[in-house]
Amino acid sequence: MKVAIVGVTGYSGLELVRLLAQHSQVQVASIHATKEIGQKLSDLYPHLKGICDLEIEEFQALNIIQNTDLVFFATPSGVAKEASEVFVQHDFPLIDLSGDHRLSASSYEKWYGKEAASPAILNKFSYSLAEFAEGPIGKFISNPGCYATATELSLIPLMNWDKVDLDSIIVDAKSGLTGAGKKLAESSHFVNVHDNYMTYKVNQHQHIPEIVQELKKFNPDFQHLQFSTSLLPINRGIMATAYIRLTKDASWEEIRQVYQKFYADKPFVRLQAGLPNLHDVLGSNYTDIGFAYNPTTKVLTVVSVIDNLVKGAAGQAIQNMNLAFGFDQEDGLLSGPSYL
Amino acid sequence: MKVAIVGVTGYSGLELVRLLAQHSQVQVASIHATKEIGQKLSDLYPHLKGICDLEIEEFQALNIIQNTDLVFFATPSGVAKEASEVFVQHDFPLIDLSGDHRLSASSYEKWYGKEAASPAILNKFSYSLAEFAEGPIGKFISNPGCYATATELSLIPLMNWDKVDLDSIIVDAKSGLTGAGKKLAESSHFVNVHDNYMTYKVNQHQHIPEIVQELKKFNPDFQHLQFSTSLLPINRGIMATAYIRLTKDASWEEIRQVYQKFYADKPFVRLQAGLPNLHDVLGSNYTDIGFAYNPTTKVLTVVSVIDNLVKGAAGQAIQNMNLAFGFDQEDGLLSGPSYL
Amino acid sequence: MKVAIVGVTGYSGLELVRLLAQHSQVQVASIHATKEIGQKLSDLYPHLKGICDLEIEEFQALNIIQNTDLVFFATPSGVAKEASEVFVQHDFPLIDLSGDHRLSASSYEKWYGKEAASPAILNKFSYSLAEFAEGPIGKFISNPGCYATATELSLIPLMNWDKVDLDSIIVDAKSGLTGAGKKLAESSHFVNVHDNYMTYKVNQHQHIPEIVQELKKFNPDFQHLQFSTSLLPINRGIMATAYIRLTKDASWEEIRQVYQKFYADKPFVRLQAGLPNLHDVLGSNYTDIGFAYNPTTKVLTVVSVIDNLVKGAAGQAIQNMNLAFGFDQEDGLLSGPSYL
Amino acid sequence: MKVAIVGVTGYSGLELVRLLAQHSQVQVASIHATKEIGQKLSDLYPHLKGICDLEIEEFQALNIIQNTDLVFFATPSGVAKEASEVFVQHDFPLIDLSGDHRLSASSYEKWYGKEAASPAILNKFSYSLAEFAEGPIGKFISNPGCYATATELSLIPLMNWDKVDLDSIIVDAKSGLTGAGKKLAESSHFVNVHDNYMTYKVNQHQHIPEIVQELKKFNPDFQHLQFSTSLLPINRGIMATAYIRLTKDASWEEIRQVYQKFYADKPFVRLQAGLPNLHDVLGSNYTDIGFAYNPTTKVLTVVSVIDNLVKGAAGQAIQNMNLAFGFDQEDGLLSGPSYL
Repeated sequence: MKVAIVGVTGYSGLELVRLLAQHSQVQVASIHATKEIGQKLSDLYPHLKGICDLEIEEFQALNIIQNTDLVFFATPSGVAKEASEVFVQHDFPLIDLSGDHRLSASSYEKWYGKEAASPAILNKFSYSLAEFAEGPIGKFISNPGCYATATELSLIPLMNWDKVDLDSIIVDAKSGLTGAGKKLAESSHFVNVHDNYMTYKVNQHQHIPEIVQELKKFNPDFQHLQFSTSLLPINRGIMATAYIRLTKDASWEEIRQVYQKFYADKPFVRLQAGLPNLHDVLGSNYTDIGFAYNPTTKVLTVVSVIDNLVKGAAGQAIQNMNLAFGFDQEDGLLSGPSYL
Repeated sequence: MKVAIVGVTGYSGLELVRLLAQHSQVQVASIHATKEIGQKLSDLYPHLKGICDLEIEEFQALNIIQNTDLVFFATPSGVAKEASEVFVQHDFPLIDLSGDHRLSASSYEKWYGKEAASPAILNKFSYSLAEFAEGPIGKFISNPGCYATATELSLIPLMNWDKVDLDSIIVDAKSGLTGAGKKLAESSHFVNVHDNYMTYKVNQHQHIPEIVQELKKFNPDFQHLQFSTSLLPINRGIMATAYIRLTKDASWEEIRQVYQKFYADKPFVRLQAGLPNLHDVLGSNYTDIGFAYNPTTKVLTVVSVIDNLVKGAAGQAIQNMNLAFGFDQEDGLLSGPSYL
Repeated sequence: MKVAIVGVTGYSGLELVRLLAQHSQVQVASIHATKEIGQKLSDLYPHLKGICDLEIEEFQALNIIQNTDLVFFATPSGVAKEASEVFVQHDFPLIDLSGDHRLSASSYEKWYGKEAASPAILNKFSYSLAEFAEGPIGKFISNPGCYATATELSLIPLMNWDKVDLDSIIVDAKSGLTGAGKKLAESSHFVNVHDNYMTYKVNQHQHIPEIVQELKKFNPDFQHLQFSTSLLPINRGIMATAYIRLTKDASWEEIRQVYQKFYADKPFVRLQAGLPNLHDVLGSNYTDIGFAYNPTTKVLTVVSVIDNLVKGAAGQAIQNMNLAFGFDQEDGLLSGPSYL
Repeated sequence: MKVAIVGVTGYSGLELVRLLAQHSQVQVASIHATKEIGQKLSDLYPHLKGICDLEIEEFQALNIIQNTDLVFFATPSGVAKEASEVFVQHDFPLIDLSGDHRLSASSYEKWYGKEAASPAILNKFSYSLAEFAEGPIGKFISNPGCYATATELSLIPLMNWDKVDLDSIIVDAKSGLTGAGKKLAESSHFVNVHDNYMTYKVNQHQHIPEIVQELKKFNPDFQHLQFSTSLLPINRGIMATAYIRLTKDASWEEIRQVYQKFYADKPFVRLQAGLPNLHDVLGSNYTDIGFAYNPTTKVLTVVSVIDNLVKGAAGQAIQNMNLAFGFDQEDGLLSGPSYL
């Protein structure tokens, strides 16, 4: 199968290139960006020499439709929504890693501050958190956000557990810098990030409505989420620490079973005996989850960790592709955590 | 004034040496440790060459009493409690940076897993969070813990605010590695910490009872605290992120005034307009506090940051010394945040 | 094919587990260490859950010989030399990642300060820098050291170039902390390494005689090397910066051809147009080489970079296994550089 | 004494503010930049709240001349040379931290690619490496570059030692990111720097002619220097590693005396027994120097370390001010290395 990558020079695009090079059934056939057209990707990114020596092409939907079987959009928000219509018209498979097809039009416009895709287009897209993808996944896939992936996988099993106070949930999430993208900004200058820890977009992160929307699907009584986001002075990795007030005490084993019911057969979600840390997943497509309950305060702490560029972006997009096209779910995703 | 430092080769001890070198009224007269007796401190720690070239001496209480005017204990827990009795007997001033004289005997034994100092000795010590030290501060000072300092300064102003749900408070605190001390352990090996973020001692950190004990002094209705501690892959700095459910909405200005009432005249506590980050305080004795309120969830987020070795240890100890001995509160503590 | 790993809990051992999980022809059949016998590797190292859930076994040579087809030694120096004799006696393939079979007995004893393996055993082993392995590589393979790999690949092409002043070569090499191993020491404590850069084992690193020995094979006139080693505050990666005085000026293209002659057909050595940096290779088995010539000083600067745990240890060991057993040289080694 | 700082929002400017706050004789009276005029410095840089709450003013030379006693230029290259003429005309003291007044006009134009100040102006300025400032230092001071400071202090003592091969000297220098300034660039984006090590401006760094020019003053036979510069993934600190071929063997003590002769009475240069590392000096105005000699290769390795923002910029500028105005050389510079 041949695929095209639009936005190849962003972090998620480069990660798609890296991971797809290990896929047994898929070949990257064309790569697209808005700048550096005609240059070899491996001249710009020498780490890809011998891995992807394609030239960067201008984006032209019809060419992609003619020459490939699937297109990935790994573009900043606002780009894919402009381009998706023509692919939908041609019934040509598209996986969007950006936020453009995740929310209702009104919610998108509120949180992203941009005009949304038309409802007709939005309706064609399925939001696909891969572990909860059901039946035929469709040709138009909206890949979840990085914080959203870690948080949803952590909280979904609790949505219908009768010991949970649904109104009490607070998530303190932390991300490495690749989550903030490649843009040059004061907040991504090395000197400002290194040896620092800073909280940003307080109560305003655009993944909040995405998480709330998805959790509501599991329990409409769930209303809102206190969600904060901070930057760790590292490149990769997200930890979402969730604090949930229980209405009755629960044993460790009881809690484990709440999660086990959902994830026993999911190869990329691992319940860990202790609280996982970032090293456990970096470089891999795993989501590791662990928890601890405090009977004094009746607070359940649930920690979930992912690599934001893999499970939180390119890896999950490939997992979704595998599900949509009937490949082995793990194809291209077998690299274990680098750990060190 | 002449001072002795016991436990000089620990992080807090070395930081006392560094800061006291800038004090206009105080001279470090003797330094003590259990190892490397007779060696020059600056041979072991070349960064101190020309700053402190004293030899390390064995600890002998009576020598210290005879030759100096004050002793700092910057020792691991369990050491100062053995030594404090003789200083109390001789009515000789002692500032203990360890946890040995902070808690009631029963609480100490539960959380530290060691026999406590006698109640008679414990009664002689004042726990001195410097901003709330009142009147004559006494000769026997128990210096607060690092997490405790950041958390108490953040939460005390809320204890009697009628819009706070006292039972709702959750603190997600993060610390650099110097907070974990100098001991060689898997958890302090560079390779395990770097590019990682790990949560430890969940619900079991020994600063929990200290914080609860101190907050109760401001409002006995306060009962317990959900408190988690994580390690940032950096050397210095603590951020305590507190989540507090309000019972009624409050404006930013209203919240500011709650804090302003307590800290307007405190030189080392700064209310910041935005949420502070670690760079704002590293290297200095400041505690910076900022906050944000979310009307959707009714959660107030309060962020406080300190340098754990300065305000969280050696700096506050010097501030307490200044208060106890009538020096200018800021003497020796004027180095601003290094920022970069 | 079944393999055993001795020293599985060291950094190189864990990396062998990670990489071999991606090999199409090889299965890790047994894992060995001196501690934690009987425990599941993935209980101790949760990142390996689902990747390697074997139990750690005591080392017993005959069991390994009976049940597997090849043994890797990823042990500290001094261990493999004690064990190799029995494998040699049984003519059972062994790849030693440690320094035990790299040097002559006298050189080993001088630089490692330990008794060497017997000359009879040493003679059975081939030192195999994979790019220069020739013909049938033998059953007993001594895998090169990490600094040695980066330095030899950088300098071998120059050994017989007539413009090189062989006596002039100075190498300033830098390594991440995994190169220093897992041992707990002051020099590997996070706080001492972070934000620091320190030069160690000046003129005394045990890879010096290894490099000199191997370079002499290419030109016996080569006598000695000024070689210094420093620790970068990162986990992985080595850069060897070599300074070579030329006797006559040379153009960039001329120099490129000197290297191209050696590496044109080597999949894991890449000549880069500019000077490579660590990101170009981290996580992969590549060695990237670049250079710059200064006509004012007549100094040629050659920079080579590797991932010390992959090309500098486990990756090259697998590459050597592939060569020895007739597998595709790249099998198990296709993960590209993680880059970010 | 009142001083003005031009370029206050750059790294060196902010560091001047931080350090001058601890000076007993000097007060920062006005601060200048090209942007954010009228804003309080501490609103933009909250770490300075309570330390410097001045408003940023537009630069106007005559105002500065009227209201202050000295002006620091902490501006990018190309700015001070435009402004210096008017201060020279008014005979008003100026310390330039930039490269604008360090080189001959022709050399400046070659290495900086900009038109130089007029020779008449250049002649008024003294290049002042503080340890070698002699007699009345003058009113117009050109403060040395950061790499230049570390390298010159390391090599000057060797210039007239008869055992040195002057043509052989190679310096491999490494700097933290603050050395590269505040500009947003791919090369200063956190993700590109973190966990990386990259060599830049090979054979082209603008400190090369500065170092050669200054070393020639000590020995005109010295001709050129092989000098390379790399970026460490940290904020502060420079290590200059110099490799010098000796013509005859020398003992450690003999080498020590070569240095001792120059630095015995210099409070800010410390000869260390071992090789210094960055932690030994970060945050302070010290230059630490250590060395090792290898009789096999006849190479002397000399390591010097500084904090590039203190001794390499703002600290040395203050030291020069102290020398020029007759203050205690150490005033404002007593903060010891933060070490951790």
